[in-house]
Order: sequence, then C-alpha cells, then structure tokens
Amino acid sequence: MGKRVTLGMVGCGNIGAELVEVLDERTATIAATTGIDLRLTRIAVADLGKPRSAAITARALTSDYREVLDDPEIDIVVELVGDVPQARDIVLGALAAGKSVVTANKALVSTAGPQLYAQARASDVDLLFEAAAVAAVPIVRTVREALASEEVTRIVGILNGTTNFILSRMASQGREYADVLAEAQELGYAEPDPTADVGGHDAAAKLALLASLAFRHHVDVADVRREGIAGVERVDLEIARQFGYAVKSLGVADSHAAEPGEPPVVRAHVFPALVPVAHPLASVHDTFNAVFVTGADAGELMLYGQGAGRRPTASALLGDILDAAINRVRGISRPAPVDSPARVGALADVVAPYYLRLELKDSPGVLSEVAGVLGAHGISLRVVEQHEVVGDAARVVFLTHPTADGALRAAMADLAGHSVVVRTGQVLPVFGT
Amino acid sequence: MGKRVTLGMVGCGNIGAELVEVLDERTATIAATTGIDLRLTRIAVADLGKPRSAAITARALTSDYREVLDDPEIDIVVELVGDVPQARDIVLGALAAGKSVVTANKALVSTAGPQLYAQARASDVDLLFEAAAVAAVPIVRTVREALASEEVTRIVGILNGTTNFILSRMASQGREYADVLAEAQELGYAEPDPTADVGGHDAAAKLALLASLAFRHHVDVADVRREGIAGVERVDLEIARQFGYAVKSLGVADSHAAEPGEPPVVRAHVFPALVPVAHPLASVHDTFNAVFVTGADAGELMLYGQGAGRRPTASALLGDILDAAINRVRGISRPAPVDSPARVGALADVVAPYYLRLELKDSPGVLSEVAGVLGAHGISLRVVEQHEVVGDAARVVFLTHPTADGALRAAMADLAGHSVVVRTGQVLPVFGT
Repeated sequence: MGKRVTLGMVGCGNIGAELVEVLDERTATIAATTGIDLRLTRIAVADLGKPRSAAITARALTSDYREVLDDPEIDIVVELVGDVPQARDIVLGALAAGKSVVTANKALVSTAGPQLYAQARASDVDLLFEAAAVAAVPIVRTVREALASEEVTRIVGILNGTTNFILSRMASQGREYADVLAEAQELGYAEPDPTADVGGHDAAAKLALLASLAFRHHVDVADVRREGIAGVERVDLEIARQFGYAVKSLGVADSHAAEPGEPPVVRAHVFPALVPVAHPLASVHDTFNAVFVTGADAGELMLYGQGAGRRPTASALLGDILDAAINRVRGISRPAPVDSPARVGALADVVAPYYLRLELKDSPGVLSEVAGVLGAHGISLRVVEQHEVVGDAARVVFLTHPTADGALRAAMADLAGHSVVVRTGQVLPVFGT
Repeated sequence: MGKRVTLGMVGCGNIGAELVEVLDERTATIAATTGIDLRLTRIAVADLGKPRSAAITARALTSDYREVLDDPEIDIVVELVGDVPQARDIVLGALAAGKSVVTANKALVSTAGPQLYAQARASDVDLLFEAAAVAAVPIVRTVREALASEEVTRIVGILNGTTNFILSRMASQGREYADVLAEAQELGYAEPDPTADVGGHDAAAKLALLASLAFRHHVDVADVRREGIAGVERVDLEIARQFGYAVKSLGVADSHAAEPGEPPVVRAHVFPALVPVAHPLASVHDTFNAVFVTGADAGELMLYGQGAGRRPTASALLGDILDAAINRVRGISRPAPVDSPARVGALADVVAPYYLRLELKDSPGVLSEVAGVLGAHGISLRVVEQHEVVGDAARVVFLTHPTADGALRAAMADLAGHSVVVRTGQVLPVFGT
C-alpha cells in the first residue's frame, strides 16, 4: 500500500475538534502499521468567525460544504452536521460524488438509511457509521460483519448513557428522578431539554439502526415504541432491589421469520424494565452502555463500553475512516446492507412477567378486586406484597406470571378507572427470565 | 457478486461435524443476502471407517489432507486438526497453495503466528481465526479491525469457561474445588486430565493470541506467566464475598511504549484474582467468557459470550469463512498482523493490592511479626482480619495497599519459612481498583 488517502470534514463542533486532535496524534502510527497516510485537508464549518484550535485552522476552512464535495482530491467525507435534512444532502452529495462517507449521525441513518445505502451501492463506496451507535463499542461492525452469517433473533441494549446514569444514581444513592436529572444536567450528561434522552428517542434511533443491520431489513425509528423513564420513582428501584432486580432502560428488538421469501417480522420498543441483578446488563452502571445480542448459533453475546463522549466517539470515527481508507486503496467497498423494510410486528403479543406498583384503597377486599380484574385478562399473580400506607392509599406490589403486553395494558386501563385504585403507580416488565 | 466459493476441510471431529450442519442450514440465506454460494466439497479425516452423518459422507472424504490442498477448485481450507505440528504443516501448505485458511487452533496461532502470517502475506490470502479465542464472541475481529487505529493499553479476559464454571459453582454453592471439578468432568465441561484448563494453559494461549493482535507485535505463549486455580479454596471465595469481591481466573496483558521505533513492552499473565462485585467481569458466570479491553481513546470495552461449545464455535468459523469468501470474490485479503516480537516486560513490576490468607500460630505477637516481614518489603496493610482457628492455626486475612508483584512474592517467600506461619494459604491480587 503506502498510499495517501485524503479526508474532508463537514461540521466541526466538539466531536469534530476531537477527531482532528486524534487524527494528528495517530496518523504516524497508522502509517507505520497500515501504510496508509491519512490527510485531512478541508473542513466546512457553519461559522468561519468562531475561534478554533491551530490544528483546525491549519486545514482549509470553508463555509460552503460543496467545496468539500467538489474537491476531487478528497476520498472520504466525514459528516458531523447535526441537522438531519442538511446532513442528508451532504451525505447523498458526497456518495454521489464517489466519496466514501463516515458519519456519527444516528438520526440520519435510522431514518434515511435505505436511501443512503442505495446511493452508496450505486457509487460503489462505503457508508460507515460505527460512531452513530454506542460510540467506540464496535456493535455496528459486529452486527454488520461478524454476525453476517448468523441468524440474529434478538437485540437488547442499554443504549442511552443519560438514562442509565440517572437510574444508576437513583438506585445507588436513593434519590428521586428530578433530583438526579438536575445533577446530570449540571454535569453535562443531560441536555437542558432532556426529552431526546429520557423520552427514549435517542435509544430508539440506535435500536432502529442496529435492528436494521442485524435483521438485514430496514426497521424505521417511527416503528419503535418508546416509554421514557420520567415515571420511575425511587421506591420502584428500592422494591425491585428487594426482589433481586435492577431497573434499566432497555431497547429490545426481536425478529421472527415470516413466510419463506417474505421479510421478517420485527418488534422493537424502548422501555424501563426490571433486570435480574445477576444478569450482565444489570452490571452496566452510570454512563456505560451495552448491547446484548442473541444469535441462533452464536448464543448470547454482549458488548459493553462508553456510549458517548468525545474521545470514544472520535475513536469510532477514526476506526471507520481507516476502514474506508483501506477499502479505498484496494478499490473496493463494503456491501451496503439490505434496505427492504422489515414487517412491523405487534408489540401486544410480547410476553413477559410484570412488576405492578399500585396505590389502592386501604380497606378489606381490595386485593381480591384487583386480582379479579387482572384475572379477567388472563393475568395470574406470582407475588402480592403490601408495602406502607401512603396518605389515603396502601402501596401494593404485584409480580405477575408471564403476560402478553396487550393483556397487561388492557388490564391496567380497567384498573385506572376502578373504584379501589387510587393511583396506578408503575408498570415495568421483567426482563430476562 | 453471485459467485461460488469452494471449501475444503481438514479434520472432522465434533466441531467439524457441527460446522457441516450449520453450513447446510445457512448456505441458502448467505447466498440470498451476500450473493456468495458456499460449497464444501472435500473433507480430510483421520479415520475413513468411522461412522459419520449423511451431510458429511455427501462430501468427498479422504484420509490424505494433501488431496484438499492440491484440489485447484478449493478456495478456502478450514483446519480443524488438534495436533499442532500437523496443523502447522496443513495451514502452511494451504496458504502456500494460495488458499485462504480459517482455523480454530489457538495453540497453533499463539505459537506459530508469525510464520503463518508471513506465508499468508506472501500468498496474499486470508488467515482468519475468530474461533480460536472465545468462540462466537467477535474479539479477534474487534482487536484486529475495529481497534486497528486505537492504542490498546490493556486486555483483561475471563478466557476459560471450565475454570469460570468451577469458580462460579464454588462461590454460588459453597463447594470445594475438587468436588466441582468432578462435576465439571461429568458434565463434559472439563477433560479427564483438566490441566490445560485449570492450569491456565488454554487461557494463556488465547491471551497471547489476543495480545499479539491488540499490541501489533507477537506475544509468545511461553512468555505468559500462568497460575492455576487448583489452590483456590471455598473459604477464599467466602471471605472475598464478605469484602465485596468475586474470585475469577483472569488473563491480563498490558503494553507500554518503549523508545520510538522500538517494539512495545508487554507483560502477560493468567492468575486467579479478586474482582469487585460491581465490575462487569464479576457478572460473567458459569461457562461464559469475557474480554475487557482498554484503549487510549475508546476507553473501556467489554465483549461477553459463550467461550466454547460446538454451535458458537461453528458460528465463529462460518463468520470467518464468509469473510474469506467475500475477500476471495473481490480478489483481496485482510492484511496480516505485524509479526515482529514484542519485548517481554517484568511482571515483578506489576502493582496491585493483594488478598493474603495465612494460617498463623495462635499466640500473641504473631500479627506484628507478619506485619514486620511485609513492612520490610515495603508492603503496608489496609485490613487485617482474624477468622476462625483451624486446628493448630489461626486463619488471618490481610488486604494490602497496592504492592509490586515482586515485593509480594519476596515477602511470601520469607513468610513461608517464618516460625509463626503454619501455612501460607492463598495469595490473590485484587483487580480493578
């Protein structure tokens, strides 16, 4: 080899600045071990007037991304623009211009994936996005390459560092949601508007992206059901721990074969759940993330690491850049994933045991009323435990036997209007049993 | 693409038979998703008279592996012979004949790696061995590809399922080593002669293989220090748990940059250690394995899964076969790793806190005698705890502050001959603090 590969970058915020730094640190080693001489020559930025590091201003800066796309020297474009419509134009333009693209944009890939893959295929170039899901954890590469010959049946992930930090702190320090959220915002782990994280949007995008690769059919982010963590209370974490569970926000997607030749049926949702403390996912603390993959032959695999952060994200980008550069030098590209859509399965059919915390009228016969409503929906109980009386209501926790999601929801709707129920406090599926 | 790729196999025991089965199950899907039509045509076996499945006898069987190597139709040779000298001849012969090779032979790769890579490079073919370390867990691919641009500083693995099963059962069921070993042998998790597993040989080979890839210089299995688990007693697991630790057999390798242009200094050893229960490695139970990788930029990553078993191993082999087939169709090969040797660092310099369990004379002044010997070697104590008296001796547990391995060993040698010491029961480093 011994070949120069030229990079252009569009967008240069925190991650971009970090990538420039890492590139300058690693270029000599990469050249020594792979023979590839990476050169970042041109960077498009939104604001040319903003003060930037000498490493950045040493490159040709422009405020027009077309200058990067039109530069015939540039082999690989690194897209680091947040805005999806603009990022799509940039990525499609770069791919159409015959450049390989490396991006960290999960919102882009999880919505426009098929369109982007089609262009990458047409241009015979790479579209790589390891940094779009779980930063430096090589999960994209694993589902796309290592498991290419495997029949993946399920993906379960702790996919958002902010929610995992909040739930971890609530559990370890016995604090309430709002209190820890405020701390996470102070530490910069949560945005001033935390909705994207705590509402499950970020995790849903990552789940859609990973499920699409693992199941080899497009899973749209719009088809991922989301439940956030704002309703989880300290008391739920405490009771869960007494039963031997941690509470984690999970993204779960499973795939079932349909008729031969038909796309698979995929069900995907993001929700807080009880995870047995002995399960490896229960040991994923603070801002760490993990993805648990079940393959028909490979069995259970888990990948774990920092799901965010400038350095890990820059490391993932650089890994993709090196891959794209190696392919470029060899005149090949990685085959784009299948882009036909998966069929959307009914989440109402998903079966799990459930944890229910209800606040009930503190009077005789109440438990049998509730058990009756649940029983009418075919839900049987494994544990009923009365906790303290809170104001006018008795807190009662139920653990059910495995129950279909739809039946559970119907039962909860009935209970919400029932005379003995003061409040339907919390409903959490139990994962992994 | 849409290309036929022809496979030959040498050796067809349990794993080989499983691979034939998985190949027959997956070939149609692989053709549909990748356009590659995998055909296994020829299998060399040691004993032609042995009864075999119809799927195997449908292929051309031979007792001479040269027929596989000499077959001009065969693109990829799958080597599944256990014996190292013979496997080396087969792999070198196949590579020299221009065939890519997929192998699960950790003993072969961890000893003859550089020689094999040199031949693969000369022939411009692939040498892939995901199945040689931790079965279907894509750790070889991760260190070789995903982290190719990363500066990996440390690898820590639970690399042997047999020892992890034994230590897990001893802890969860309060049983002694010999008792659980006998159960593991009955279950087929341990060999009649368990030395390769419990003595750390198997883990050392995997660690050498992974360290060589991660640090990009050959780490020889002979340079990996091994300590087995046969000395770990139930009481150690119980005391460790009281202090908040699990006991795990770890393979640890770290790398330090030497002078510019010089190979890195690598230290590698396999040993039982105390792992804090909150650490992800402490959640790796039974026959599961995991590898924890620290990168300068990526931070901490962990990959977890079944480290052995027919199906997971066959899945890893098939993943490599598909990779080699894709490369074959495109006329390329994966660059062979750097094969110059790493420099061997002194394990005596490795610093960790230690757990010491000593059986001491049950008389006054004994603890200060022991503390004096430790202090003479610069070892200071964080915890001293007297447990029950056992026969003529008092069991005393010490937790030290961080101490160099060499100083600790020197102190233990002094204590072994000291008049107040009845028995030096157990010495375990504390990992991860």
